[in-house]
Amino acid sequence: MKFSPLINELITSLKCLPGVGQKSAQRMAFQLLERNRNGAMQLSVALHNAMQHVQHCQQCRTFTEQNLCDICADGLRGESAQICVVESPQDVMAIEQTAEFKGRYFVLMGHLSPIDGIGPADIGLDLLAQQLSELQIEEVILATNPTVEGEATAHYIAQLCKQHNVNASRIAHGVPFGGELEYIDGNTLTHAFAGRKSL
Amino acid sequence: MKFSPLINELITSLKCLPGVGQKSAQRMAFQLLERNRNGAMQLSVALHNAMQHVQHCQQCRTFTEQNLCDICADGLRGESAQICVVESPQDVMAIEQTAEFKGRYFVLMGHLSPIDGIGPADIGLDLLAQQLSELQIEEVILATNPTVEGEATAHYIAQLCKQHNVNASRIAHGVPFGGELEYIDGNTLTHAFAGRKSL
Repeated sequence: MKFSPLINELITSLKCLPGVGQKSAQRMAFQLLERNRNGAMQLSVALHNAMQHVQHCQQCRTFTEQNLCDICADGLRGESAQICVVESPQDVMAIEQTAEFKGRYFVLMGHLSPIDGIGPADIGLDLLAQQLSELQIEEVILATNPTVEGEATAHYIAQLCKQHNVNASRIAHGVPFGGELEYIDGNTLTHAFAGRKSL
Repeated sequence: MKFSPLINELITSLKCLPGVGQKSAQRMAFQLLERNRNGAMQLSVALHNAMQHVQHCQQCRTFTEQNLCDICADGLRGESAQICVVESPQDVMAIEQTAEFKGRYFVLMGHLSPIDGIGPADIGLDLLAQQLSELQIEEVILATNPTVEGEATAHYIAQLCKQHNVNASRIAHGVPFGGELEYIDGNTLTHAFAGRKSL
């Protein structure tokens, strides 16, 4: 005994969402059918439109439905000599919320991971190399995640910058604000000590 | 600074799913865009089809795209004199998996909850009353959830059955198989003692 074909199809399709298994998918399907058919129809349209029209920005590789994303299309920022390299569009959002950085971004959409078959070309480093050689870039700020893969990726890009005589810098690692020292892991503390500044 | 309009729309729409907030919706949107556009397109179609065509079974009120669900359309079962009353289609599925019950179902799609403005008509009790008076029903098995609302709903339906001279029974409550006595709550144990059977 199974649910009716259309309901089964809906449940199966919902499982393509990350973190959604059989039970959650069932709950979602029945919740939508019972209480929010309009929301579900909107979701259907939004999914269709996004999948059809969203592509990569031709300059920074983030997701956008235009050829250039809003930041790259912004005259001043789009031609900035400072590039901040991040792993994902969400990272761009996090940095933008600080309103601190006025340059432009380069979004890798992942990190180097030879074990998963993800090489330099898969994270757009050929495009970055092209920009480093053709455009007037003064500094590349490496803001990849402080994980093993993120560090390796940062290191690789730093080498790439060296080849093109462009300065590369890495964002500081250390104790986060609001954290309590006793709960900070050893790795972070080591970085915090190594990166200490004289007052 | 925000994501591009289509991405924003997708994230907002994903939040209509139960248990999905801003961060999960972002994660889902980017995961689909990056890795599973086909899955997302299928989900879009499945949502559209299900919302357009799935309605309530005319006899038992469960969800189906036909006029009658598979069980009600099954000659023998659909005209069974035993009706099992449950709160949701998932409950039907759980009971069907035991392959024990051979009658048909009546799905309330909720429970009585005056505080939320859900009265007898909202859970289809007018349809049930009609079936009790017009059809040859011998027994109504009340399998609503063992919660306060579920119990109240069962009680209300039992009264309804009495008015139509139909036997009503409630599924047994007690210690579940595989449970350890020391971890069972007091309410369940009280029911287990009250419902004891002589061997």
